[in-house]
Amino acid sequence: MKRNVLIIGAGGVAQVVAHKCAQNNDVLGDIHIASRTLSKCEAILESVREKAAMKQQGVLKAHQVDAMDSGAVAALIRETGAQIVINVGSAFVNMTVLDACIDTGAAYIDTAIHEDPTKICETPPWYGNYEWKKRDLCAEKGVTAILGAGFDPGVVNAFARFAIDMMDEVKSIDIVDINAGSHGKYFATNFDPEINFREFTGVVYYWEDQQWKEKKMFETGHDWDLPVVGTQRAYQSGHDEVHSLATNYPQADVRFWMGFGEHYINVFTVLQNLGLLSEQPVKTAEGQEVVPLKVVKAVLPDPSSLAPNYEGKTCIGDLVKGTKDGEDFEVFVYNVADHKEAYNEVGSQGISYTAGVPPVAAAMLIASGDWDAGTMKNVEELDPKPFFTILDKIGLPTRMQIGGLGGEDKPWNG
Amino acid sequence: MKRNVLIIGAGGVAQVVAHKCAQNNDVLGDIHIASRTLSKCEAILESVREKAAMKQQGVLKAHQVDAMDSGAVAALIRETGAQIVINVGSAFVNMTVLDACIDTGAAYIDTAIHEDPTKICETPPWYGNYEWKKRDLCAEKGVTAILGAGFDPGVVNAFARFAIDMMDEVKSIDIVDINAGSHGKYFATNFDPEINFREFTGVVYYWEDQQWKEKKMFETGHDWDLPVVGTQRAYQSGHDEVHSLATNYPQADVRFWMGFGEHYINVFTVLQNLGLLSEQPVKTAEGQEVVPLKVVKAVLPDPSSLAPNYEGKTCIGDLVKGTKDGEDFEVFVYNVADHKEAYNEVGSQGISYTAGVPPVAAAMLIASGDWDAGTMKNVEELDPKPFFTILDKIGLPTRMQIGGLGGEDKPWNG
Repeated sequence: MKRNVLIIGAGGVAQVVAHKCAQNNDVLGDIHIASRTLSKCEAILESVREKAAMKQQGVLKAHQVDAMDSGAVAALIRETGAQIVINVGSAFVNMTVLDACIDTGAAYIDTAIHEDPTKICETPPWYGNYEWKKRDLCAEKGVTAILGAGFDPGVVNAFARFAIDMMDEVKSIDIVDINAGSHGKYFATNFDPEINFREFTGVVYYWEDQQWKEKKMFETGHDWDLPVVGTQRAYQSGHDEVHSLATNYPQADVRFWMGFGEHYINVFTVLQNLGLLSEQPVKTAEGQEVVPLKVVKAVLPDPSSLAPNYEGKTCIGDLVKGTKDGEDFEVFVYNVADHKEAYNEVGSQGISYTAGVPPVAAAMLIASGDWDAGTMKNVEELDPKPFFTILDKIGLPTRMQIGGLGGEDKPWNG
Repeated sequence: MKRNVLIIGAGGVAQVVAHKCAQNNDVLGDIHIASRTLSKCEAILESVREKAAMKQQGVLKAHQVDAMDSGAVAALIRETGAQIVINVGSAFVNMTVLDACIDTGAAYIDTAIHEDPTKICETPPWYGNYEWKKRDLCAEKGVTAILGAGFDPGVVNAFARFAIDMMDEVKSIDIVDINAGSHGKYFATNFDPEINFREFTGVVYYWEDQQWKEKKMFETGHDWDLPVVGTQRAYQSGHDEVHSLATNYPQADVRFWMGFGEHYINVFTVLQNLGLLSEQPVKTAEGQEVVPLKVVKAVLPDPSSLAPNYEGKTCIGDLVKGTKDGEDFEVFVYNVADHKEAYNEVGSQGISYTAGVPPVAAAMLIASGDWDAGTMKNVEELDPKPFFTILDKIGLPTRMQIGGLGGEDKPWNG
């Protein structure tokens, strides 16, 4: 029975994680949050106190740490007595935080794949470049590490596993991520622009016919007729979960689809064609070395600033096709979240909410022992039912349409 | 009879100026070129030598100078014995170079208004903020200073004066600048992007009903049916020459129209709305202070790199309306230039060519005494006929359509 959580990071997702940990501190114990900037951690804790989110009296504390320094993170784990680390810091710190967990025996949870700041879109499967290289060491030391336990990757991996468990054979998994909300700004990204754009500047890797295939971003679009949000255009994109699902279910085609409006695509296209999304430095006429993407990030709205005026809903789900009892079988497993409700509850917009709630559910499952695997796991390698049960209770209920999109609509356990 | 030219600047326009000075060194004498970066000056002189542009044997020399340092420029004027300075450096150095001319007695020519790097679009008339404050001093010291002697401002001011001289009364001056050429790149500016964008991020000042009025950029578009380039859409924009023409001809409405394609407007709109055209520094997440516009400049193609593949023509002219002998009278005075011809002659594209040839014509008129006014002048305050005569000979012939656009088409002196 592990207890006491250390949250790494102090962005929009970390805010949701902190609120949700506080709401469940009877299960999770002490709550610590640490990032490079102490004041950001303190602002998050202030918001937790304002909402009186703590379920019961307990420890709630902010720390300063350089998460790129594995030794410093390990020292903080020891100092705080945290047995569960939820890493929602920059995608560049996964490996140093994971190393600190391996060193100290704490359980590790993250929500996105590790990235090298100087590289875009490495060889598939992406997890093989960094995280999975530590799998044997985790097993050897009995360290629980749950990779990609946000919404996508994360809940969508559990959706896939759940659907596949209903079938005899799986043939394809299409993950569709639609944000039908509106923030009212000319343009903004819902996550750190640096990470958000990096997702779309590289090759679109997908898995079909038991092999990796490649497309360009925005090359293939499809109109999806979805529950609640209606018909929405989404484009085949690269995404973390394709890389683990394709490895675990090589017999299935695995694709990811992200919804984009024409305006987003236009802005993205202009910025990319001009070279302003590059992670490689350029030199100004005055001789200053600057990474264009970091300047774009600096001029865009802070994603957390979008929350107060964000309206509308998200719909993220998996359309999984296969066979059952010798017949074709299809199911769409999904969640719908609401930006305004998220803001009212935890002060964040719906995108941060969908990303931040699942790792807390995962932490609760480690605390209860259900998911305390003693080794490294991607989410589809764990039992999805206790995960859905907690998510139902803490804000992200799972529903499904049997027979595929437009089919009989009911709760996952209905 | 002034002789010996010092060119300040080493960009695309400076290259044209150097070639044209070389082609007319029998009139102009020694040719010196100076900028912050000596190697850029040397590259220009190399190109002059490659084209064997020097009309007769003579001095052709490169120098390093910080044009923001008035004393250094004055010292260079004395060292070189230059009696005519053609300033085609950055728009930020006008006043220091002008001061150096006043100090040494050399004649001064520029092609664009002075700008303060930290200010966009100051109070009209723009010349009143900087240059005209030195007018009395120029007169007192007998220093010739010809302001805005490029194409626009410059030749278009002479077009206006020429048309007005044909009339009893002038009612309106509409200056139309169309670049119907294509450089084949996704996006590029024809001038230094920093200066180019600064032209369009501020208020559009224009003169109507004997007062300054304001519009936003791209607020008012009009399709102009022009000689050679056909029907082209242009948008009312702010431009230097409006500010002197409105002062000299307050009875006339004075407007400037710049041609833009939809693609240019889209890219510009995205960059401006995101804040990437700002001249004010922003701070990156890492704490680096950066001026977004300077980063945009760094990622865009160097305007001089466009020349080899530039094709098509420019058409720049003035539609001037008024009365003559008691009847309405209209004339369109214009020039058509060709990108490829410009490149073949001087290694630059047509936009640099149209901007760089006129100040050399002005220098030749100072050398001959015709325009050696011994005080500060905007181009419309000088006799346009000797200017057109030289321009006809050195690459930018003036034509007109009597009766307005589509009227009888002939040379200005035809």
